[in-house]
Amino acid sequence: MERLTVTLGERSYPITIASGLFNSADAFWPLAAGDRVMLVSNETLAPLYLEPVRAVLEQAGVKVDQIILPDGEQYKSLTSLDSVFTALLKKPHGRDTTLVALGGGVIGDLTGFAAACYQRGVRFIQVPTTLLAQVDSSVGGKTAVNHPLGKNMIGAFWQPASVIIDLDCLKTLPARELASGLAEVIKYGVILDAEFFTWLEQNLDALLAHDEAAMSWCIRRCCELKAEVVAADERESGLRALLNLGHTFGHAIEAEMGYGNWLHGEAVAAGMVMAARTAQRLGQFSEDDTRRIIALLTRAGLPVEGPVQMAPQSYLPHMLRDKKVLGGELRLVLPQAIGKSEVRAGVAHDLVLEAIADCLPA
Amino acid sequence: MERLTVTLGERSYPITIASGLFNSADAFWPLAAGDRVMLVSNETLAPLYLEPVRAVLEQAGVKVDQIILPDGEQYKSLTSLDSVFTALLKKPHGRDTTLVALGGGVIGDLTGFAAACYQRGVRFIQVPTTLLAQVDSSVGGKTAVNHPLGKNMIGAFWQPASVIIDLDCLKTLPARELASGLAEVIKYGVILDAEFFTWLEQNLDALLAHDEAAMSWCIRRCCELKAEVVAADERESGLRALLNLGHTFGHAIEAEMGYGNWLHGEAVAAGMVMAARTAQRLGQFSEDDTRRIIALLTRAGLPVEGPVQMAPQSYLPHMLRDKKVLGGELRLVLPQAIGKSEVRAGVAHDLVLEAIADCLPA
Repeated sequence: MERLTVTLGERSYPITIASGLFNSADAFWPLAAGDRVMLVSNETLAPLYLEPVRAVLEQAGVKVDQIILPDGEQYKSLTSLDSVFTALLKKPHGRDTTLVALGGGVIGDLTGFAAACYQRGVRFIQVPTTLLAQVDSSVGGKTAVNHPLGKNMIGAFWQPASVIIDLDCLKTLPARELASGLAEVIKYGVILDAEFFTWLEQNLDALLAHDEAAMSWCIRRCCELKAEVVAADERESGLRALLNLGHTFGHAIEAEMGYGNWLHGEAVAAGMVMAARTAQRLGQFSEDDTRRIIALLTRAGLPVEGPVQMAPQSYLPHMLRDKKVLGGELRLVLPQAIGKSEVRAGVAHDLVLEAIADCLPA
Repeated sequence: MERLTVTLGERSYPITIASGLFNSADAFWPLAAGDRVMLVSNETLAPLYLEPVRAVLEQAGVKVDQIILPDGEQYKSLTSLDSVFTALLKKPHGRDTTLVALGGGVIGDLTGFAAACYQRGVRFIQVPTTLLAQVDSSVGGKTAVNHPLGKNMIGAFWQPASVIIDLDCLKTLPARELASGLAEVIKYGVILDAEFFTWLEQNLDALLAHDEAAMSWCIRRCCELKAEVVAADERESGLRALLNLGHTFGHAIEAEMGYGNWLHGEAVAAGMVMAARTAQRLGQFSEDDTRRIIALLTRAGLPVEGPVQMAPQSYLPHMLRDKKVLGGELRLVLPQAIGKSEVRAGVAHDLVLEAIADCLPA
């Protein structure tokens, strides 16, 4: 079992990584006998994981209610949020309830935001079941729902009390979802850790083959990197923005194509290549490094080009709604080398459009 | 001009109280040239105040957009919230925007919650135009919208950057709205300040006649009391709950009667009498003191009985969804004397029902 801590003073919390965690009530610390929880999951995952988790919690004396949402990014909405509140109020659950997010990034972000707002804030626990949620969205307290005009535009910083990562979940994860998670994994290498990027080049096949030792170490390393960044900059006033590499381009793809048609990691993969091409055009990144990124993303089964339907101009309105925009000016995360990146303002829109054009299907 | 500070470390902020503030850009500190704001108001207040405020801000070099919501408690909803987000995203406003709430408690609570959630949190300024908002809801950072199953059930603690109270607004306030604000004013006397309660007994006529000196001092004293309580207990883990006197009963009335049919202050007035009767039945409050409360509320034009349509039993389901409920158990704010109160758990439901019955129309 791997265990690490996100260090945020009185809001610090543990991340536990192992196989078979869903069979152990101890893994669900700080839940204890007499507590009340609302399990939030979706229609795809509930049949796989909800009953075992419910059973282990009930055996430990926890009172469990549940709500099952439809599956998909398009349900990460104010409407779904409202249905969670209705479920909580019908029982009713008090301020001493705990929300448990059992699912991928959509369930985690939405449940976390519901916990941030229900009665002005209740406890919640992240139980991420996809690689993407395990290495990225479940750690760090960013919660949100989407708005038709922009992804993650409505949300809160609200830290979980605990993150519980059961590696067994990845065994049933569809290949496309695994690849989507690997996009965020590769992102950590590009922005922060050249050694980890090299390790990924050497071990990607093991990860794709679900090698447990490799996967366990990979997830731990991503969570470590994220925990360090979040501890240094919880509310994204500086360093934390680096975690957004590829996301400004990627969110434009997700919004324009309709949420759920491109998976988040797929859009981020293409967006990372666009960021690399932008950095190249600025003369601060090498063709060799862009090729290493493209090669690794391709091996992971990820797109390295934007959607054929999207002209470069169609990216800009979405990108100008990015949360990093200040004073109406675009700010982009750009790589400087593999393992090193920066937030840069003042990049000419024409140059950005050219970089996007570099990444369109021939 | 009266000015005081809510002391909350780096989130401290000023409350400014005077006539004619809407004519002075200085009053709108910390807004400055180059800033961008979204004014949020409602259809009733916008014709009165929006243009002057807009003009003074634009003269100071602030870029102003606006959204006008329908008037009424029934619009303090997730749906209205969403329309604020849409207005912000259409422009689009970035994380460096400021939301300005120009209106009563509904506009203030909703705008504050929109600011707490938009892009995970932006700055906001409270410009309360009703007595109720000036003495209570605009100070202290409690923001929320209603859910059909409970008032203020969805919200956040999010402090404003400044509270701007222009006494001129009260001159156009309907008598029923003024009375509703006086319910919260009287509440401060009952829970915290016997001397202030006596002052109110002596000066209520001056307040009802819009005497500016009396009104200015009254608002200052309420804000002082609230600022002290909030500074001591921002997130309502203890002391702050006292500000809820009458609200557990009152919220039941508002929800059962349909939001907006009973004004908030009217429901709180009847609720305070129910709390006093509960305390009397517990042997901890005197009939004389209950009579003083009833007399003062009556002089202010407020109800001191529950709605004729509501049987005592119909209060309980609403009261058990109160945010003070812990472990399924009701916790009530009860007066111990004029100027002294406590939060009390474990009061028998039968006794509560009897106290409500004491307050039904004959």
